[in-house]
Amino acid sequence: MKTFLDCIPCFVNQALRVGRIATDNEADIKLLLDRIGSKIKDIPMDHTPPEMGVIIYDEIRKITGIDDPYKTTKQENIAEALSLYPELSDLVRRSDNPLFTAIRIAIAGNVIDLGMDKAFNLVDDVKTILQQDFAICDLEAFEQKLETARSVVYLGDNAGESVFDKILIENLRKPVIYVVRGIPIINDVTEEDAIASGLDKVAEIISSGTPAPATILHLCNDAFLKRFYAADMIISKGQGNYEGLSETDRPVFFLLKAKCPIIARDLGVNEDDIVLKYSLK
Amino acid sequence: MKTFLDCIPCFVNQALRVGRIATDNEADIKLLLDRIGSKIKDIPMDHTPPEMGVIIYDEIRKITGIDDPYKTTKQENIAEALSLYPELSDLVRRSDNPLFTAIRIAIAGNVIDLGMDKAFNLVDDVKTILQQDFAICDLEAFEQKLETARSVVYLGDNAGESVFDKILIENLRKPVIYVVRGIPIINDVTEEDAIASGLDKVAEIISSGTPAPATILHLCNDAFLKRFYAADMIISKGQGNYEGLSETDRPVFFLLKAKCPIIARDLGVNEDDIVLKYSLK
Repeated sequence: MKTFLDCIPCFVNQALRVGRIATDNEADIKLLLDRIGSKIKDIPMDHTPPEMGVIIYDEIRKITGIDDPYKTTKQENIAEALSLYPELSDLVRRSDNPLFTAIRIAIAGNVIDLGMDKAFNLVDDVKTILQQDFAICDLEAFEQKLETARSVVYLGDNAGESVFDKILIENLRKPVIYVVRGIPIINDVTEEDAIASGLDKVAEIISSGTPAPATILHLCNDAFLKRFYAADMIISKGQGNYEGLSETDRPVFFLLKAKCPIIARDLGVNEDDIVLKYSLK
Repeated sequence: MKTFLDCIPCFVNQALRVGRIATDNEADIKLLLDRIGSKIKDIPMDHTPPEMGVIIYDEIRKITGIDDPYKTTKQENIAEALSLYPELSDLVRRSDNPLFTAIRIAIAGNVIDLGMDKAFNLVDDVKTILQQDFAICDLEAFEQKLETARSVVYLGDNAGESVFDKILIENLRKPVIYVVRGIPIINDVTEEDAIASGLDKVAEIISSGTPAPATILHLCNDAFLKRFYAADMIISKGQGNYEGLSETDRPVFFLLKAKCPIIARDLGVNEDDIVLKYSLK
């Protein structure tokens, strides 16, 4: 997905939000905003929006020396999600269509997104999403693809959400490669977060190598790209991965909650809708 | 009021909003955002936020050649307010405290603010504000000051709101100097708008000369400043005038609805509260 004009104020807003998480030094935050403001003119509008995230975090690191501003928050989100894991696993087991319920739960976990200026309440949001109608629901294609897939490449999104991904992965009943970001960015899941979420028990964890809060193929490492292009089924979680891969010709299933109005518009759905979209239609 | 870090993303957002009103040429809007972004580093944080409005509108004029992007909208807002004028005047006449009701109506008009990213419904908002409790209500000081004032300097804010100002002015029963902006900016009231609102029938209309969406004294003309410093009672409408004058030692009564969270915090009230605040306490 390309960058829209609406993304530009949002970049500045994100820089302010993460600046405040990284430091309480006002002058440093102002310097961050100065630098991000000056870079607006260099944004190629045909790049994807998460590529600006790379620039924002690079400046955060340069100015504050802090690599992972959301480290503690990510640990708290993983702990909260783990506390819900037994109950949600049980719910899946008891449901009429365990796979579909597990998909809903994986999407519910997508509310844990600190890149958005939206508060979330994990327990309440999970309850809502378990009842919510899908705006796009390519479940049949998902089931068919899964049946014949030798393995699944699963692109993780946020830490905490990763625990909910584990529930879906357990219900895929296929070998899974779980893909994490190359370095900490926003609250996106890294290898350390994936292990803390218990994903090493159910999947092979690999890094895409991306420094972006998204799977931006030209920023990914060769090892990941080899797996990505060889995969016969890809599950992509969240908005960032959608932004990076919406134009791909690979067999990707996008699972997300459309929290941003621009992404919602690109998908042809309303804000806050939930989506299971197959890219090849 | 000084500029806060939170104002910075808001400036970029305002630039996008007004850019889209002025033109549908995406490249021109991007150029506007490029230039506003590059100027973030030059913002002195001890300047008031509306001073950035001057820069944004200056760039709009340079890029698009359009001086008054909200001209048509201002005319529509004045027409809608004029259609409510007879009913609201009647309401004031029949009320127990006509002056206080007229103050409420003047504040209700302050919802017509196109500098804010908030929709408004004039009829509904007036109804709400007529019933709403004041977060700050220096009515007694207002009544006392009015009793002894030889004349009143009344700082207008938005076009349309200006019709509601007329109702208050009619109930002040003192000679009034109604002050408008020097040039069109956002939907702020200009001399032309004030005349279209019928204010020439009830007040002397003068321009402060400010190119800002606010009364920024160092940007005002001498003729206005003479009246401002000689005034024994000043009524200041809206957020912009508050931002410009919150530190003044002149006897100013601020009448506004706190639509911006940062201004609300500066006033010590909640967002969407209504305020009648005397600056000298």
